Amino acid sequence: MTSSPPFEPPQHGDVLAAHRVLDGYAVETPLLESAMLNERLGGRLLVKAEPLQRTGSFKFRGAFNRLCRLDQTACDRGVVAFSSGNHAQGVALAARMLGVPATIVMPRDAPAGKLAATRAYGARVVLYDRQHENREAIGQDLADRHGLTLIRTHDDPWIVAGQGTVALEAIRQAEAMGSGVDLFAVPCGGGGLTAGCGLALIDLLPETRLFAIEPAGHDDTRRSLADGRRVRNAPGTRSFCDALLTETPGDLTFGINRVLVDGALAVEDAETADAMRAAFTHLKLVVEPGGAVALAAVLSGHLDIRDKTCVVACSGGNVDVKVFREVLDGAVR
Amino acid sequence: MTSSPPFEPPQHGDVLAAHRVLDGYAVETPLLESAMLNERLGGRLLVKAEPLQRTGSFKFRGAFNRLCRLDQTACDRGVVAFSSGNHAQGVALAARMLGVPATIVMPRDAPAGKLAATRAYGARVVLYDRQHENREAIGQDLADRHGLTLIRTHDDPWIVAGQGTVALEAIRQAEAMGSGVDLFAVPCGGGGLTAGCGLALIDLLPETRLFAIEPAGHDDTRRSLADGRRVRNAPGTRSFCDALLTETPGDLTFGINRVLVDGALAVEDAETADAMRAAFTHLKLVVEPGGAVALAAVLSGHLDIRDKTCVVACSGGNVDVKVFREVLDGAVR
Repeated sequence: MTSSPPFEPPQHGDVLAAHRVLDGYAVETPLLESAMLNERLGGRLLVKAEPLQRTGSFKFRGAFNRLCRLDQTACDRGVVAFSSGNHAQGVALAARMLGVPATIVMPRDAPAGKLAATRAYGARVVLYDRQHENREAIGQDLADRHGLTLIRTHDDPWIVAGQGTVALEAIRQAEAMGSGVDLFAVPCGGGGLTAGCGLALIDLLPETRLFAIEPAGHDDTRRSLADGRRVRNAPGTRSFCDALLTETPGDLTFGINRVLVDGALAVEDAETADAMRAAFTHLKLVVEPGGAVALAAVLSGHLDIRDKTCVVACSGGNVDVKVFREVLDGAVR
Repeated sequence: MTSSPPFEPPQHGDVLAAHRVLDGYAVETPLLESAMLNERLGGRLLVKAEPLQRTGSFKFRGAFNRLCRLDQTACDRGVVAFSSGNHAQGVALAARMLGVPATIVMPRDAPAGKLAATRAYGARVVLYDRQHENREAIGQDLADRHGLTLIRTHDDPWIVAGQGTVALEAIRQAEAMGSGVDLFAVPCGGGGLTAGCGLALIDLLPETRLFAIEPAGHDDTRRSLADGRRVRNAPGTRSFCDALLTETPGDLTFGINRVLVDGALAVEDAETADAMRAAFTHLKLVVEPGGAVALAAVLSGHLDIRDKTCVVACSGGNVDVKVFREVLDGAVR
């Protein structure tokens, strides 16, 4: 395996640099607003629509920014990543755009659409059993045997910086809409998006309060922040938010988030399903379960935005038809 | 009833003027693209995402542009419109933003979401029976009795000019994405969007070929263009494209479209449903049946975009959960 990147925490300037790298390659996703949701909430809700990003989630941003930092030898040998689906697609498409061979280790039970899309982007997909095999060991083994560079999901400074462009764009878009940002809420799995957004906000809008939102039972970041150290989720807890089922906060990301995050909240799957329906009805946006938890925190009232402006990141839209139909049916409780 | 606007055909300059009027009020909707759809089609497909417009359809553009031309007396008295739903919402929200009272005449069987939204925007809704009552007579009567200005759905130069901003924006966005536009396809009901887009294109990209797309059985514009005169649809034909069920092309709009439209095509409801599913999967966009016919023309192969760049307007996203679920189920045939 080629050497890991130096583990220096990224800074605000790294987000600015990532924004320049992504210019013309990533989509500047719109900041959506609904008069009806604003009225219902008594505040201004601005939704950063990352389902409209390439590959249907924000993960493309970090992946592309990371792959742009590989040297020619590393590019020629290729990259390996493990992911339940969104990072997989992000790495696969970024790799194809940059002419880098990609191998992706994915769980056998990943959403069918995520598996199909990753293959369609030209990546070699290696499946593993989520219950009995260790994806990190499989990825490491592939990296070692073939000299591949491992592209981590969140514990990588360039990945974090790339994800931070979500907030950088949103801040500028809100400004163009005549609005500051009082609250900023993001879905939180390993914490890469949260950390990146924190780094984007800290120099530009230091008064903005940043919230990390997780599915109930997978609120490892919330509990870790409360404890002041990284804790794990209880094994066997379930959620339909497949994109956020990490065991514990990242090392790099938690180091950033413990400083920059102002609060963390957990939402029930039923609240997330309600938020997905609201996005369908009021925003005309397809949001996947894991992408909708921050919206759910606001719409359920857990995060009160009355008389405030709140940016919510809807981080992805890669949801299978079957799950979306259950959501429309009100069958997710 | 206050006097109708002078019936002079709008020009390219009126679209430019509408664009200035709408600046800061309408959303500049994104031009979406999917690497996978491009690959499948062998061309470049750029989707103008009007479901993300205020009120969930392009109709807000024309309505807002029209209402801005009312004098103070007309504003004080109020406006009346008849519509199956999208024009209703566009007029209702534009009226509320401009402080104008609005009465909307809607069919009793309009999609529940469209009825609810129109009321939520503060309009007074008057229901009628689509089979046995004449909405034009009801609207005219309300206008006469209360001195209201009738806001037509398409036969109005300012409405047409407002809708044309869809193409104006799309042309500029495509240019920023490094692309010209070989083909431009739009859903066609009364022909307002088609005519407006024609006016936008003619001075900027005169070589671009403009296509009007209709549901099969409601292809009055296609047959009228072939005949060289306005013809009517056979009564009783059905389609789930509720936004496009006009009887005949507009007078003003057909006068423009017979000059500016290069071709017209009809698509089956099953093809439209396939396009709605493709928008869900590949664009993460909720598109209503009537909003998806132009996309359907391309994805079904009726409009061949191989080795070309085609802009498709997805004109609205106001679809009820029940219909969308049937679409996801593949139950629309």
